[in-house]
Amino acid sequence: MIGAEIHNFAKELWPINRSITGLGVRLTLKKIKKQLPNLKIYSIPSGTKAFDWTVPEEWHVREAYILTPKGEKICDFSTNNLHLLGYSIPFKGRLSLEDLQKHLFSIPEQPNAIPYITSYYKKRWGFCIAHEQRSRMEKGEYEILVDSKISKGNLNYGEVLLEGKSKKEIFLSTYICHPSMANNELSGPSVTTYLAKWLTGLHTREFTYRIIFIPETIGSITYLSKNLSELKKNVFSGFNISCVGDDRSYSYIPSRASDTISDRVAIHVLKWIDPNFKRYNWLDRGSDERQYCAPGIDLPIATIQRTKYGEYPEYHTSLDNLEDVVTPEGLEGGYWAIRRGIEVLENNFFYKSCVLGEPQMGKRGLYSTLSTKKSRTNEKVMMDFLSYCDGQNSLLDIAEKVNVPAWQLFEVIEILQKEKLIARV
Amino acid sequence: MIGAEIHNFAKELWPINRSITGLGVRLTLKKIKKQLPNLKIYSIPSGTKAFDWTVPEEWHVREAYILTPKGEKICDFSTNNLHLLGYSIPFKGRLSLEDLQKHLFSIPEQPNAIPYITSYYKKRWGFCIAHEQRSRMEKGEYEILVDSKISKGNLNYGEVLLEGKSKKEIFLSTYICHPSMANNELSGPSVTTYLAKWLTGLHTREFTYRIIFIPETIGSITYLSKNLSELKKNVFSGFNISCVGDDRSYSYIPSRASDTISDRVAIHVLKWIDPNFKRYNWLDRGSDERQYCAPGIDLPIATIQRTKYGEYPEYHTSLDNLEDVVTPEGLEGGYWAIRRGIEVLENNFFYKSCVLGEPQMGKRGLYSTLSTKKSRTNEKVMMDFLSYCDGQNSLLDIAEKVNVPAWQLFEVIEILQKEKLIARV
Amino acid sequence: MIGAEIHNFAKELWPINRSITGLGVRLTLKKIKKQLPNLKIYSIPSGTKAFDWTVPEEWHVREAYILTPKGEKICDFSTNNLHLLGYSIPFKGRLSLEDLQKHLFSIPEQPNAIPYITSYYKKRWGFCIAHEQRSRMEKGEYEILVDSKISKGNLNYGEVLLEGKSKKEIFLSTYICHPSMANNELSGPSVTTYLAKWLTGLHTREFTYRIIFIPETIGSITYLSKNLSELKKNVFSGFNISCVGDDRSYSYIPSRASDTISDRVAIHVLKWIDPNFKRYNWLDRGSDERQYCAPGIDLPIATIQRTKYGEYPEYHTSLDNLEDVVTPEGLEGGYWAIRRGIEVLENNFFYKSCVLGEPQMGKRGLYSTLSTKKSRTNEKVMMDFLSYCDGQNSLLDIAEKVNVPAWQLFEVIEILQKEKLIARV
Repeated sequence: MIGAEIHNFAKELWPINRSITGLGVRLTLKKIKKQLPNLKIYSIPSGTKAFDWTVPEEWHVREAYILTPKGEKICDFSTNNLHLLGYSIPFKGRLSLEDLQKHLFSIPEQPNAIPYITSYYKKRWGFCIAHEQRSRMEKGEYEILVDSKISKGNLNYGEVLLEGKSKKEIFLSTYICHPSMANNELSGPSVTTYLAKWLTGLHTREFTYRIIFIPETIGSITYLSKNLSELKKNVFSGFNISCVGDDRSYSYIPSRASDTISDRVAIHVLKWIDPNFKRYNWLDRGSDERQYCAPGIDLPIATIQRTKYGEYPEYHTSLDNLEDVVTPEGLEGGYWAIRRGIEVLENNFFYKSCVLGEPQMGKRGLYSTLSTKKSRTNEKVMMDFLSYCDGQNSLLDIAEKVNVPAWQLFEVIEILQKEKLIARV
Repeated sequence: MIGAEIHNFAKELWPINRSITGLGVRLTLKKIKKQLPNLKIYSIPSGTKAFDWTVPEEWHVREAYILTPKGEKICDFSTNNLHLLGYSIPFKGRLSLEDLQKHLFSIPEQPNAIPYITSYYKKRWGFCIAHEQRSRMEKGEYEILVDSKISKGNLNYGEVLLEGKSKKEIFLSTYICHPSMANNELSGPSVTTYLAKWLTGLHTREFTYRIIFIPETIGSITYLSKNLSELKKNVFSGFNISCVGDDRSYSYIPSRASDTISDRVAIHVLKWIDPNFKRYNWLDRGSDERQYCAPGIDLPIATIQRTKYGEYPEYHTSLDNLEDVVTPEGLEGGYWAIRRGIEVLENNFFYKSCVLGEPQMGKRGLYSTLSTKKSRTNEKVMMDFLSYCDGQNSLLDIAEKVNVPAWQLFEVIEILQKEKLIARV
Repeated sequence: MIGAEIHNFAKELWPINRSITGLGVRLTLKKIKKQLPNLKIYSIPSGTKAFDWTVPEEWHVREAYILTPKGEKICDFSTNNLHLLGYSIPFKGRLSLEDLQKHLFSIPEQPNAIPYITSYYKKRWGFCIAHEQRSRMEKGEYEILVDSKISKGNLNYGEVLLEGKSKKEIFLSTYICHPSMANNELSGPSVTTYLAKWLTGLHTREFTYRIIFIPETIGSITYLSKNLSELKKNVFSGFNISCVGDDRSYSYIPSRASDTISDRVAIHVLKWIDPNFKRYNWLDRGSDERQYCAPGIDLPIATIQRTKYGEYPEYHTSLDNLEDVVTPEGLEGGYWAIRRGIEVLENNFFYKSCVLGEPQMGKRGLYSTLSTKKSRTNEKVMMDFLSYCDGQNSLLDIAEKVNVPAWQLFEVIEILQKEKLIARV
């Protein structure tokens, strides 16, 4: 079961303190490169312009904690990296509880959860804390240490390029900027690593693959600003991979156009994996599809997910972990949903019948020689498929019309091609 | 509240005996001109050909009544102008009740209502009477006087032309041929008068406005026959304004094409004003859209109404009055529904994002600097709007996609234009 | 009632042992030719190639039966031609019950039904028997005689060609290869014979008609292989006629394209004949539409049926008879459903109003001269029809929009043409 392997890999990545820049990103990329030697790692210097944005300075944390009036160390960054507000500036000092409160973040409705909060583009420091712990804090003076540094450095990302028969590309993107949370977001890079391994190992690929591991938003914007014309020229389909690790539901977020081949494939695959999959719309977007589908960018990127960010209670808190939320089964499901999508794309060609009228299947041993009242499911699917082989219907079109999963037709196509009854257009 | 002003104006018009021609029409136009000094009044002589029709002779009534055998005066035109069949020819004489009955019109199911009936194109005389009163009429000889005159004269109508930045026109049409009834039809000319006042007072108008006050059917046919090529060249949207005065419902009648910009705007506006608004179809038409959308005319004219003619019990009877049926609130609603439609048209442009990818809203103070789990409605609408600014979506398209009233986006557009994040295409 | 005539004709055809070739087909065609002297009969030699198929040898049966150990004659072909497996090869010999069983076919769920089974393209012999009778067969030796012959001969079919004003063709096809069964399939050739008689007798026809009586599958493939380019050039509509004789339901099977004029007409007609008519889709196909709509053939052929093959319990058994299943009423309904479809096609032109705006119907006596609150159904349909006469809407388009059966508009068109208010485009 590949889900178990992916789960193990996610555990390996878990403790790293990721953010949009810094050592955590580099360490994560290094671990991915161990799985994918063909991963190329890029460094973009702080201050580089990217469309309307600027690559930020790097953020490093050596130590961060609060000492209570009784000398107890709480909100210790070394215990849980969510405790420190993302991109906290350095601070050392003593504050009354009242003054400290302005720097504390908690969720009253989820008293046991440490929230995940960042302040990338405004200078602040702060601590995230379980509300239950916060409410037990006593009056008095607290000693605060945020031994962090924000300084010029690089934004890093990784890229795998896999050549195919065609220069047309399928684009996969996932993000590596979230610290220790599981569904959002260790599931994305973990599953994508294993998809890349599978694709790398394929004997032949119809299409070229571009697979990137980036920090969210600033990473995709930076990547786009460097590769836009090539992406626009070649990418005909792709998926943003995020939240693919829990085992509670499947869901789909469309591209902005909502009717690209990526959307059609996503809907087709999910419908057959889980008829109750949840269909979101463009207004529900929230990850890098915001950039890939922005006006002027217009890439055909859709999202296949398990339970969507923002739609599960543990989202963006310490409760989103690798024990209760993300499971081997959940990752397995996420992996296969996207792999099925890619397999459909790799087989989504147009076929043309090589004979006029129905072929005589009987003389080829492909049809019962006795006409009875009984149904013949397999023959039926084959004849239905054939009846649509007019060169105008893609595999996906036909699968929709015949109402079977596209992958059920892979073998039918093989047989009919061998019998020279159909040919690729 | 503008509804109260409109209601007062309707009261002023109430007692006038309107018909498709004659003094009543002229007097009504004179009162409208007092509100709209820019109203131009036209006279088209009887006998003028208009497409398949001929402008009829004028109808004038000095006096009309019935004297009962007991000498009681009933069906007195001076008390209620509905008592006389519209376009009644002159008659003076004595008739038995039996013979008189052929000239009486009443509605058994609405015993207290005087019906509104006309016979424009066949010469007749008759009286309309409450059925309850009719059933109390005793045998005996009745004395009848219809002191009317049908003679050569003019058909009159009024027109307001308001120049805009573009020569493209929005066309508003309402009718002034109905005698003393309120929803159908004093509401139409009263509301249209106040819409014309508002439009006249605007500092700038994107489009040119053509607003006409005409008798129904023969008036619109005459107007079309004189202005068709100009109308076809310039009019890109418009509304027929009728039955906009009661407070019971909103409704919509499509243009014949049913998918013009007028239709889209009408549906959008009504959906947000009243989710339960009633959607009729072209087969339910009954007013001047019959002419404006006729084959070969093909103007994009839709209808936004309160309760539609024919769909309320008081329709075309004396019960359709300014007390029980048409109210200030009803007129206010009718006025604003159409005004919203016009406002949407005035703002319905295409916008293009000036940056690639999402802009960094934070550095412009347009976005919370802290990422939390909470929702941000206004920011969300702004980002959603921006995400559709690809130059292919009109304001209306985007409002439909973002699922907000188009007028909620007016301010968003202003902010984004000021920040140079979007530009009109 | 034409249904009774058709039912009588079906009775006349009933006893003939039809198959895809042979004397039965020729005898059936001869009887049809008595009704349709303009029927031309064709003979295609065995061995002729037809696309992926080959015209098979002829099958003749002189005698066939089983003698039980007690000497009782069962499964006697002369009593019911369904008893013999279609295309059974000759056999004479003695078999134990056990060995005989492999050659017997019955339906346990329908113990009184003799099934209809064929083995056209694999050499076999066999008997079809009511399961109830089969289960009473005792152990012992059975004597079998299948005195049949399979030998070179011809495949036969009949064709009626009727010239019309236009060379554009309407194509009707039915099949004559089923032995003694009633709905599937004596109803098809019987109804088609009477449709051809009606069409032959018409004074003028707008379109040319091509009506064929063929064996199913091999017949349509053979016919197509000989006439394809002409069919593709001329046929713009048509119906496959099968299962048009029972009185239980109406149904529709689309062409492969599903949106041809034939489909639109079929749906329109059936909707007005039976609002509960059953809509199948292309996956439910099963008769010669499989060939007519195959890739590369692509004729616009839809199917109007009573109860569809495979969807009624008596299907392909001896229970499908002319007493309990097919009735004069059922045939009458099948006949009229298709005739209505043809009538709609014959009248399906585009009309253009000859006046601008609404015409003044009153002066032509086509409209009530008195305006009241009451509805005027006929006038309404006429005005609605007129309102769509813009030269862009066909009769069928307008009938759909006005929501009346197209045939209700035939008279309206006649009146309006006489008044010169509309003209054909």
